Amino acid sequence: MADASIPTTNRQVRLARRPTGLVSRDDFEFVDAPMHELADGEALMRTVYLGMDATVRTWLNRGEGYLPAVEIGEVVRGSGIGRIVATRCDAYAVGDLVYSLPGWQEYGIVRDDVFTTPLAPDTPLLAMMSVFGSTGAAAYFGLTDVGRIKPGETVVVSAAGGATGSLAGQIAKILGCRVVGIAGSDEKCRWVVEELGFDACINHRTEDLTARLKETCPERVDVYFDNVGGRVLDAVLGALAMHGRVVLCGAIAVYNEQGRPPGPSNYLNLIARRGTMQGFITLDYWDRFDEAFDHLRTWATEGKLRWREELVDGLDGCPDALNMLFTGENRGKVVVQVAQE
Amino acid sequence: MADASIPTTNRQVRLARRPTGLVSRDDFEFVDAPMHELADGEALMRTVYLGMDATVRTWLNRGEGYLPAVEIGEVVRGSGIGRIVATRCDAYAVGDLVYSLPGWQEYGIVRDDVFTTPLAPDTPLLAMMSVFGSTGAAAYFGLTDVGRIKPGETVVVSAAGGATGSLAGQIAKILGCRVVGIAGSDEKCRWVVEELGFDACINHRTEDLTARLKETCPERVDVYFDNVGGRVLDAVLGALAMHGRVVLCGAIAVYNEQGRPPGPSNYLNLIARRGTMQGFITLDYWDRFDEAFDHLRTWATEGKLRWREELVDGLDGCPDALNMLFTGENRGKVVVQVAQE
Repeated sequence: MADASIPTTNRQVRLARRPTGLVSRDDFEFVDAPMHELADGEALMRTVYLGMDATVRTWLNRGEGYLPAVEIGEVVRGSGIGRIVATRCDAYAVGDLVYSLPGWQEYGIVRDDVFTTPLAPDTPLLAMMSVFGSTGAAAYFGLTDVGRIKPGETVVVSAAGGATGSLAGQIAKILGCRVVGIAGSDEKCRWVVEELGFDACINHRTEDLTARLKETCPERVDVYFDNVGGRVLDAVLGALAMHGRVVLCGAIAVYNEQGRPPGPSNYLNLIARRGTMQGFITLDYWDRFDEAFDHLRTWATEGKLRWREELVDGLDGCPDALNMLFTGENRGKVVVQVAQE
Repeated sequence: MADASIPTTNRQVRLARRPTGLVSRDDFEFVDAPMHELADGEALMRTVYLGMDATVRTWLNRGEGYLPAVEIGEVVRGSGIGRIVATRCDAYAVGDLVYSLPGWQEYGIVRDDVFTTPLAPDTPLLAMMSVFGSTGAAAYFGLTDVGRIKPGETVVVSAAGGATGSLAGQIAKILGCRVVGIAGSDEKCRWVVEELGFDACINHRTEDLTARLKETCPERVDVYFDNVGGRVLDAVLGALAMHGRVVLCGAIAVYNEQGRPPGPSNYLNLIARRGTMQGFITLDYWDRFDEAFDHLRTWATEGKLRWREELVDGLDGCPDALNMLFTGENRGKVVVQVAQE
């Protein structure tokens, strides 16, 4: 069953060469490829939104991560939301909304697998790209399942003005913690303190991180939700409380590094403080996402959660949109709008 | 109640200045101090053996670790075994054997606190300094409580020829794991494979660590018991299996470093592999030591455990004995004999 309005070509962003540092448009090919012919078990989704996640940058590097690297010539892997426009898969009917990994292309192939989730027709699509999507799930499971935060604890969140960090800080506040953010601009610091209710926020570009951590976390840091790695991670490791937990959600500061990034030399504090540093991958929680969304929806309805998106227009904007995560110029979740809702 | 044979002076090794790198004798003062007058609640132990632990080196540096730094002019902190020779403490009678933290001196003060454990009269004192002491406890709790090893898993142990590492590897074998050691000499590698039953051992000074880890751990590393830190830790992090655990027991390679030691840049693998890196302090398990010793005694009786000591004669030998841990010239637990049993 197919929609007659499906075009014969499919605009794609393919990896042309391995980027070094920030990506440039020359690292990609923008191709109008022939439309994919569906095989049994496949459905075609028209991409509406693509979410920009820092992890995408790691897939562009050589070598095996938690998923295989994107090969030269392949469409860049990425998560997004869209509508089924043709189907040879019993699980989806034309018109269904799905959240999946369509990749950076106008039309993606989806299957009835763990990486595709059907959405209710009334799902607010843009919010689904942030708070009610993998971003919200990362913040929720990172804090509760990996970090095991408890009321009264001091939680520090880096990239606090980012999509994941801003949600993580608010969730920690809702769950009774004292929350200190770390961000890269005064504007972001102001936003998370004045609008989102963080107890404090440190500008790591202009302030003495170690001194300010001591000042804002007099009882040291019980849980650190790390989105950036690098020298920020090192500074917080130095301020870890007894039995402190470091939740490794990402490492924006080092994903673009040439060669081997510097490791956190204060990791030895994990011995003195009996600390734990643990990494996690949000996609591992895919089949528990609803558990997070139930809480997030309740808190949103109660007016306790705020978020924002930075909309970038058109598929060809993907490379620049990805870079925004690393230059820090974004305000909230970076979402590329590929088609109208 | 006091023993008439107690001398009027007490030989002590005090910290004279903060060492850089390996300690030198000039970093210490060797003093015949007036004998301590006991206050209520105190007892005097005559030190028989002092155990050399790498952690002692960290206490000589400035700054707070898991215990306060040893101050200039203070007796160096250290664990040992001795006999009570005078007491104003109800918990101890003259003649009792105790395991405590007497420090680097002929006569130490003990109290009825968590750091002093009475010993049965028939305790084998020298073995108590290694397998049935904090060394055995470190190996046991590090693997079972922190590393949560399971039968069939691949366990890698560094400083495999050292006191803790050699026991850790044997315990992991007894508990059904495949065990690969990492050591600094062919002699040590031979010893742990041929005498202790490790499945393999890598000489990190002469072999390509990454290549040999791939070869000896084809299914990657489930648990890494780390005694050394530095580039060995980094290499094993790179070989971590999914849900792998790194147990930080110590960091011999970096305790002597000037300035900030390099951190493990492969820590990012903790995200991709959903790994955990956790530090622990053996003294935290002091009140559970018997749990370890019960197992260790059984295994020793069954002939499944082997260990060896490197005896150094006389209190004044402490600095050189401590250095042996870092130069790797010791065979087994380094113990300073301060007095005859």
